[in-house]
Amino acid sequence: MQKEYVVGVDLGGTKILTAVADLEGNILARVRKDTEAKKGKEVVIQKIKDTVYEAVQEVGIELSQVKGIGLGVPGPVDIKKGIIKHTPNLDLDNINIVEELRELDTPIFLENDANAAALGEKWFGAGKEAENMVYMTVSTGIGGGIIINKEIFHGAGDAAGEIGHMTILPDSKLQCGCGNYGCWEAIASGTALSKLGKEAVESGKDTLMSDLVADSTKVNGAVVAKAAEQGDKVAKEIMDKIAGYLGIGMANLINIFNPDTIVIGGGVSQSWGLIEDKVNSTIQARAMDSLVEDVDVVIAELGSDVGVLGAVATALAELDLF
Amino acid sequence: MQKEYVVGVDLGGTKILTAVADLEGNILARVRKDTEAKKGKEVVIQKIKDTVYEAVQEVGIELSQVKGIGLGVPGPVDIKKGIIKHTPNLDLDNINIVEELRELDTPIFLENDANAAALGEKWFGAGKEAENMVYMTVSTGIGGGIIINKEIFHGAGDAAGEIGHMTILPDSKLQCGCGNYGCWEAIASGTALSKLGKEAVESGKDTLMSDLVADSTKVNGAVVAKAAEQGDKVAKEIMDKIAGYLGIGMANLINIFNPDTIVIGGGVSQSWGLIEDKVNSTIQARAMDSLVEDVDVVIAELGSDVGVLGAVATALAELDLF
Repeated sequence: MQKEYVVGVDLGGTKILTAVADLEGNILARVRKDTEAKKGKEVVIQKIKDTVYEAVQEVGIELSQVKGIGLGVPGPVDIKKGIIKHTPNLDLDNINIVEELRELDTPIFLENDANAAALGEKWFGAGKEAENMVYMTVSTGIGGGIIINKEIFHGAGDAAGEIGHMTILPDSKLQCGCGNYGCWEAIASGTALSKLGKEAVESGKDTLMSDLVADSTKVNGAVVAKAAEQGDKVAKEIMDKIAGYLGIGMANLINIFNPDTIVIGGGVSQSWGLIEDKVNSTIQARAMDSLVEDVDVVIAELGSDVGVLGAVATALAELDLF
Repeated sequence: MQKEYVVGVDLGGTKILTAVADLEGNILARVRKDTEAKKGKEVVIQKIKDTVYEAVQEVGIELSQVKGIGLGVPGPVDIKKGIIKHTPNLDLDNINIVEELRELDTPIFLENDANAAALGEKWFGAGKEAENMVYMTVSTGIGGGIIINKEIFHGAGDAAGEIGHMTILPDSKLQCGCGNYGCWEAIASGTALSKLGKEAVESGKDTLMSDLVADSTKVNGAVVAKAAEQGDKVAKEIMDKIAGYLGIGMANLINIFNPDTIVIGGGVSQSWGLIEDKVNSTIQARAMDSLVEDVDVVIAELGSDVGVLGAVATALAELDLF
């Protein structure tokens, strides 16, 4: 019998990363192309196909040996119908991507990218022992994927896990991209971090951040983190504030889900050492003791491979190969 | 073949309500006894047994025809081990209740009362069509039960669903029974409602509530609701405030779970008409549009039978009889 494989496609706003993996999830080849979303959906769809053809060719196998293709996309999806509902930076709204990729003649499993990442960390990364896990990714926004009994929990409309839009500061003046005020994402993400950093520099506070950038518009989360690392008091206060809000949201997730594992991904995981104590003390104060004991909070392990390994995991999960 | 039955036991701080039901969940007999918790655990355990014997006798069947007994208890449980971890008003902490009831010679299925109630509403009440449902009960506290793919989601330590302890007003001075500040339960439960009512009366505000009670200590949630119903402005403002907080927590649950159904139980459901508009407008403002479209918010249907029918449902669910 011929050996069998799966393919994972990580479709992003700027690049498409496609990999062929064996049924244990070992990546055997990877192909990367710029998405060039501005050239329109036909170009993007053709590029997805091309990455699959090229990756398969690189391994020296036939496409018929690929049992399924996991496809992670940024934004909400209709998994059963195979429709991408909306993507912020791609011209693929309401496209039936499974139909569009029919020529590949292989089962396509569509998944939201945060859910795919959660599956990736669960099977290949920091959550290998997890049964009930919350994956949270904190970068410019806060996204999430919920794993229950080792499977993604999709909810009624494939949209479960919008943890970044939980309101935790209802009276906040900070408006979220979703229109609401005081969303977790609006007050605890990298965007909130850089906003607070900018404000500190602009208000003329005595802070290292001013020396690290040419002007206040250049202040981002990494700059705040760097200044805090170097002992800057203003930057440390900002990190502390964000850490407190991160802890509140995590305490809420612990109280609601009683998870065995929370996996932290995204840019924030690179500065975790700076905020870990405050996050943990906030969780201790706000989540119920026995539930705090039940949970391990761990940092994501897959780095920039999380998308493509998540897409591989999506295919393996849908094919019941775990 | 002899006909088969299940038993449900609703163990409460003040009463034990036990019912025999057929495998369709129709109640054939019910026996109610005062818990008399102060007389000690042996008395309570004996009373549980007695209610089972008496209910079975009332139907005129043998105990051997009972396939399982569902037992709903207030407080956290260890389902696999059969241990009641803690009960606020009963002397049963750390009791292995399944062992203690061994003489009944029937499988005992232990469940937390809010989870049992969720199962009851799902199978016999307002959630019959639900696959992914959040049951919330708002009385002196806020409890919850989460149903995923028609089953209770228990989490890592059988403690999932502590939705009342999600922090939604972190800077609040209102301390929750759990020690945290700004828990949903502390600011949106019947306790919060009566607290605000008392404060209004004590501060000498011009409100009907003062006429409805002999003194401010007598103000409770029902008094505030009654005054609001009669058009009292102060009481209406209080109801509005609570409704807003209820809506925030519900919006969070919608964003996190993308449920098809939320079932509202507990005392608040009796005053739902007074707060419904404000709850709904808050959900609209704070939950994501497509997720709001996916969910039906409905009032619980089982009334004071929810505990015992929940215990019956627990037995039927554990026996795979649904």
